[in-house]
Amino acid sequence: MTILRTVFFLSDSTAITAETLGHSLLTQFESIRFKENSCPFINSIEKAEEVKEQINLAKQKNGAPPLIFSTLMAPQLKEIIKDSDGFLIDFFETFTPQLEQELQSTATHAIGRSHGMGNFSKYISRIDALNFTINHDDGGSLKHYDEAQIILIGVSRSGKTPACFYLSLRYGIHTANYPLTDTDVDISYLPKSLKKFRDKLFGLSISAERLHQIRSKRYPDSKYASLKQCKFEAQRAELIYRQEGIPFVNTTNMSVEEIAITILQEAKLYRHL
Amino acid sequence: MTILRTVFFLSDSTAITAETLGHSLLTQFESIRFKENSCPFINSIEKAEEVKEQINLAKQKNGAPPLIFSTLMAPQLKEIIKDSDGFLIDFFETFTPQLEQELQSTATHAIGRSHGMGNFSKYISRIDALNFTINHDDGGSLKHYDEAQIILIGVSRSGKTPACFYLSLRYGIHTANYPLTDTDVDISYLPKSLKKFRDKLFGLSISAERLHQIRSKRYPDSKYASLKQCKFEAQRAELIYRQEGIPFVNTTNMSVEEIAITILQEAKLYRHL
Repeated sequence: MTILRTVFFLSDSTAITAETLGHSLLTQFESIRFKENSCPFINSIEKAEEVKEQINLAKQKNGAPPLIFSTLMAPQLKEIIKDSDGFLIDFFETFTPQLEQELQSTATHAIGRSHGMGNFSKYISRIDALNFTINHDDGGSLKHYDEAQIILIGVSRSGKTPACFYLSLRYGIHTANYPLTDTDVDISYLPKSLKKFRDKLFGLSISAERLHQIRSKRYPDSKYASLKQCKFEAQRAELIYRQEGIPFVNTTNMSVEEIAITILQEAKLYRHL
Repeated sequence: MTILRTVFFLSDSTAITAETLGHSLLTQFESIRFKENSCPFINSIEKAEEVKEQINLAKQKNGAPPLIFSTLMAPQLKEIIKDSDGFLIDFFETFTPQLEQELQSTATHAIGRSHGMGNFSKYISRIDALNFTINHDDGGSLKHYDEAQIILIGVSRSGKTPACFYLSLRYGIHTANYPLTDTDVDISYLPKSLKKFRDKLFGLSISAERLHQIRSKRYPDSKYASLKQCKFEAQRAELIYRQEGIPFVNTTNMSVEEIAITILQEAKLYRHL
């Protein structure tokens, strides 16, 4: 029998930090199923009381105390939650005192700073990077490739687009991507238009089986999704990377985050955010 | 004089968790400047030893011990880092024992689970949502609006595009966005093409001053960026939302994350990820 535990992520801001912390801890308990509730913007006594009631209700329903991952700052609101029937993990209360001592400095205890707006020029960098990526997705417009910090290349469905958007949206990096089409990989040759940007190229490779699985989802039983075609394209793409000395990452077992961070690190990209 | 402290984010995987948690703690110390080093994929003794050396070097250079935020799992690697000259904050070691006791279950201590690939259908949902957003950005193709979970509307540069991409890439939500152009706001009228999707509409409003500031960055001294034009558009857009009963959020002082999470919550969207 799978055990079910209710979980609450509480924050006076987006709850992104509370969720990140909670998720990385909870993925360590595979035998338990967690029913998650995200509670962002808990910034008033009314809202805190409301969440407390939800927590207490969940306790009544399940028997076991709900887990609470909290990044609340305001002492008044924290008191309300402490008084609930949940099992509380208070992120700031745990680490802030240690840091205050080590840094010989008092924490501001200001709410919701880490995913807030930040300064105007960072906001603009982020929007500019995102617009750049939108305009340079899938081989769109090579006109401004000299402004790209990195250009991802790979066969269709090797993971270029999500990695690109992740890099621009999260790190403000001007990222373009260019598909190696059947014709390019057929002749085992780097497309001419890319040659002068060789220093900015980064390849994505993928196993033929995985590519076949992904392509089949959208275009089942097509030549495009056939294992034979996928094998052909995957092998030729890797050959191009090796022949041209282009760094590449094998995306077969990687999440979007892992692909993006690997590229960030290997290409030594400067993060704007 | 600003104090400078070096910071290391250590992980056997992406280091996203270590960075997120570390940042939210460090933003509480405004008087100190932090020089941050991200160290993802520390998954061998060699790499751990290398980081340890960097940490010790930073200590020699600065005097003060570098701060280390770690989500390392492997005991062997943790020992190496513990033995460094840094001040270590170990997220899992702090909370895992409490959780094991509360859950009456042993943590797997498997590395790098929280930003890993997850299952295939979640991967596909995410890619599908992202492709949907790419195809339905800025009023592109209304053909599949019935498949949208939400459609953001607002004047140019009110924050629609980044919020859309954030919702699709992070939460797998099919998000479209449609610009209220000068003509639409001129006649204070919801564009006809949107009427039948009214239940999916969510408006973004913004202060005229902020809009002027953002638009001026790209098109200084244009009519488009003038305060007068921005005032006109911002007021009319809000009028449309009110007249038509469309929920809306004022994005003036919000980050992309805050806008996205507010929409997620107010529109009660189902997260696929």
